[in-house]
Amino acid sequence: MGKPLILVTNDDGITAPGLRMLVSIMKTIGEVVVVAPDSPQSGMGHAITLDSTLYSKKLTIDLDSEGIDEYSCSGTPADCVKLALQELLPKKPDICVSGINHGSNSSINVIYSGTMSAAIEAGIEGIPAIGFSLCDYTWEADFSQAKDFIFTIVTEALKNGIPKGTVLNVNIPKLKKNKLKGIKICRQAKANWKEKFDKRTNPMGKVYYWLTGEFELLDKGEDTDEWALANGYISVVPTHFDLTAHHVISELNTWNL
Amino acid sequence: MGKPLILVTNDDGITAPGLRMLVSIMKTIGEVVVVAPDSPQSGMGHAITLDSTLYSKKLTIDLDSEGIDEYSCSGTPADCVKLALQELLPKKPDICVSGINHGSNSSINVIYSGTMSAAIEAGIEGIPAIGFSLCDYTWEADFSQAKDFIFTIVTEALKNGIPKGTVLNVNIPKLKKNKLKGIKICRQAKANWKEKFDKRTNPMGKVYYWLTGEFELLDKGEDTDEWALANGYISVVPTHFDLTAHHVISELNTWNL
Repeated sequence: MGKPLILVTNDDGITAPGLRMLVSIMKTIGEVVVVAPDSPQSGMGHAITLDSTLYSKKLTIDLDSEGIDEYSCSGTPADCVKLALQELLPKKPDICVSGINHGSNSSINVIYSGTMSAAIEAGIEGIPAIGFSLCDYTWEADFSQAKDFIFTIVTEALKNGIPKGTVLNVNIPKLKKNKLKGIKICRQAKANWKEKFDKRTNPMGKVYYWLTGEFELLDKGEDTDEWALANGYISVVPTHFDLTAHHVISELNTWNL
Repeated sequence: MGKPLILVTNDDGITAPGLRMLVSIMKTIGEVVVVAPDSPQSGMGHAITLDSTLYSKKLTIDLDSEGIDEYSCSGTPADCVKLALQELLPKKPDICVSGINHGSNSSINVIYSGTMSAAIEAGIEGIPAIGFSLCDYTWEADFSQAKDFIFTIVTEALKNGIPKGTVLNVNIPKLKKNKLKGIKICRQAKANWKEKFDKRTNPMGKVYYWLTGEFELLDKGEDTDEWALANGYISVVPTHFDLTAHHVISELNTWNL
């Protein structure tokens, strides 16, 4: 088997340091094509562009990307994956990796995550896919400590195959390399955002809001991603896109419908 | 117990006929507050507005809404629910209903659905929630045939309570009332969109794309929402936001990580 074809995308945009780091790791594993948003798309969830047009541009971001095809796309992360698979890639990729996101996508954040929606979109299309996120929101975040772990996760995924209908959600704690304890397979912790809206008045006298909030962990389990991250481990949650709550079907059948 | 407080929202925008029909049904059940997007938000998935401001406006859409508080919101469906719960509602609602969507949100469409993301957002915040969708994309769709069924589902949900962590995804086939066979509790069918990008050149010579596609059902089960809809039933899928593929955890633990 030749070198695997790896599609790299993200939601922070094609110039984000997290994506550049992921590209540099993937170059050591296979042939890389980048298709990523031309502007930040955080919090886009699984949005797709239905009522407007998509633009895409072939470009070179840094000298380091020599020999790599890179495309920016005007759409959402899910759009990037759709466009990559249908129009831009020479063939079906062997794996799609998304990230490294600037900020956590653990627990309930997976629902809002553009990073994970790109990976899930690839999963829906039958491509093995992994989303990577670092628990550090800053643009200057240090992504280097997780290099070896990311290499290992991707090569193991290529070797073993990711079970069908499943996408991996990988989160990395903000720790120096010698503090990282290893990798744990986890479930998604129950959690919530306690929203607060910052209500302001614009210069024209009109009221507007900024969405802010505090993360609230509602789960004491030691098998969760939040527990792993708080205890120095990289969390890997197998995530699927069959949203059926199968255990509830029999209860609903007792309703008088 | 007094009249239940019902939050009504959608993703087609506050003026959509599907929402107006849902309001008219909910008025017969309880006290209604509407908080819905000021413009169509189809395909927004679970997007939220992080990097820009939100506006909201109290308004009256039609004479029929006398006695009902209605607010438009400049954000996504998930934003509408967050803003409603934190800023606009007088108290925690007893239920949140989203829709009636102009178009199906069955099977894999749940992932892209703004209608369902609003309901899921309410579910995350501990509010019983239901998304309703009619399998007819047109603005002129006939929503009247499902009136009694929607009334029944909402009153049963208020009576029995929706199991915690679960949100109902209700889809209604495009059929005359006397052809509707009833309601079936289902699982989400395995399905996919075979994308096709319509590639064009704009008047300035720049290439752009329109996303189009064909729905591809990959599931022969007779317990799915697609089977129910094709056979004249309203489908109800209990949907959850714990995306963990629990059955895959043990397999991943055999990897060499």
